[in-house]
Amino acid sequence: MRLRIDLAYDGTDFSGWAKQPELPTIQGSLDEALATILRLDEVQTIVAGRTDAGVHAMGQVVHVDVPDDVDPRTLAMRLNSFLAQTAISIHSVREADPGFDARFSPIFRRYEYRITDTSSIRDPRTRHYTLWMDEPLDVTTMNAAAQSLLGLHDWTTYCKAREGATRVRELQRFEWVRDENGVLVATIQADAFCHNMVRNLVGVCVAVGRGRLDSVDAVVLRDQRVRTAAFAVLPPQGLTLAEVGYPDAAELALRASESRRRRNPV
Amino acid sequence: MRLRIDLAYDGTDFSGWAKQPELPTIQGSLDEALATILRLDEVQTIVAGRTDAGVHAMGQVVHVDVPDDVDPRTLAMRLNSFLAQTAISIHSVREADPGFDARFSPIFRRYEYRITDTSSIRDPRTRHYTLWMDEPLDVTTMNAAAQSLLGLHDWTTYCKAREGATRVRELQRFEWVRDENGVLVATIQADAFCHNMVRNLVGVCVAVGRGRLDSVDAVVLRDQRVRTAAFAVLPPQGLTLAEVGYPDAAELALRASESRRRRNPV
Repeated sequence: MRLRIDLAYDGTDFSGWAKQPELPTIQGSLDEALATILRLDEVQTIVAGRTDAGVHAMGQVVHVDVPDDVDPRTLAMRLNSFLAQTAISIHSVREADPGFDARFSPIFRRYEYRITDTSSIRDPRTRHYTLWMDEPLDVTTMNAAAQSLLGLHDWTTYCKAREGATRVRELQRFEWVRDENGVLVATIQADAFCHNMVRNLVGVCVAVGRGRLDSVDAVVLRDQRVRTAAFAVLPPQGLTLAEVGYPDAAELALRASESRRRRNPV
Repeated sequence: MRLRIDLAYDGTDFSGWAKQPELPTIQGSLDEALATILRLDEVQTIVAGRTDAGVHAMGQVVHVDVPDDVDPRTLAMRLNSFLAQTAISIHSVREADPGFDARFSPIFRRYEYRITDTSSIRDPRTRHYTLWMDEPLDVTTMNAAAQSLLGLHDWTTYCKAREGATRVRELQRFEWVRDENGVLVATIQADAFCHNMVRNLVGVCVAVGRGRLDSVDAVVLRDQRVRTAAFAVLPPQGLTLAEVGYPDAAELALRASESRRRRNPV
């Protein structure tokens, strides 16, 4: 039986999602909890969005294959008990629809990035998941840059180099707003993201908001398709994986096989 | 010259507001920062709301008397630099209006208390300033209990015993709502609060929300004017001092002398 697990975590004290020997990781904690509770030798969860060290999640999704007699509701309660002293919270465990693949079935991933600048009212309670900058940022030009980037493009400029894989993705939403405390919040959604793409995209907008780049430069740089030192990649602490979107049950398997083919061309 | 300082802090790693030898406190950090920057032997800030260990603040206010040549704007910047690695953020420093007294001039203090129950979507990023309960709470009966308590009353039932001082206060606002994640948020406002009063008031509402008390019991217990074991005082982590309200400049001194007289009767 395949289970879908929805979860959230504060990434501050973890070395990212993926299991690593000797280091605290979210996958390491989750897989250990699953193996202990289910009395299995090894468990290997598959995740929708591999988050880097220090990145948080509110709407992370994984799948895992388990024996057929596992009760999802009981497992959810036992996982939360097991993980109670950690920064990981299980939102739900349920039997996955046929064809569901946490990594390959999604139709979108949505991230948020939070920044306080000199116009924000700073809330120290949120400093673990907000980047504090001692400069003024211009939300209007940042939003113009963000909007200009939308669509299906090659994102080589904004991705950490990795051989072989395509860097064509569809950027579906990208906007900046100030919340009630004046905190700048970016919403960034795509079918999928290359490695470091979100932190590069918010980075180019911050360079625009500081006046270091013009808002049209974001598209000019993108279309050059080369890595650049014109802006800085932003640190992980401001980033949260907000939501992973899946198609209707009937489309799950088709979507998964399309994604696998597109991202791993023969 | 008297300065008014507005500040915020995450109280998690502090032993409360008030200076204590050998323990990390917010006043200890702030007074040390002021003394160092202003090259004074000793600084003694006076605070609007003394918060207990683990309690947070977004709208705390203090006053402090300093030499006339201090520039408030420069001091604000230097304080934030000095306190940059701490969980304390200075929102503003300005010359206080004549008659201003951070402790005695307020016309209200407003607190917030945050609880996740089994209907909330849990956000591990906020766990330092939210109480997590593994039970369902009924926000309707909690709100009914809260509303029934409003007005000018003797709060002995809901205060930590302290000799001599009056326990008559005006509860001006008390309501519970669920936010967009289903987190229960209480807004509690009074002219002033006795020691532990907020955490007792949210405690009686939680007993109502769990079905241990009827919503009318909150008033019945209050009017008995004796301490009781019928409900539990809630822990500090869910509590934040949200705002301190002051009257117009012309009323500051009058209000301060009235408050002093009322709370310290001859």
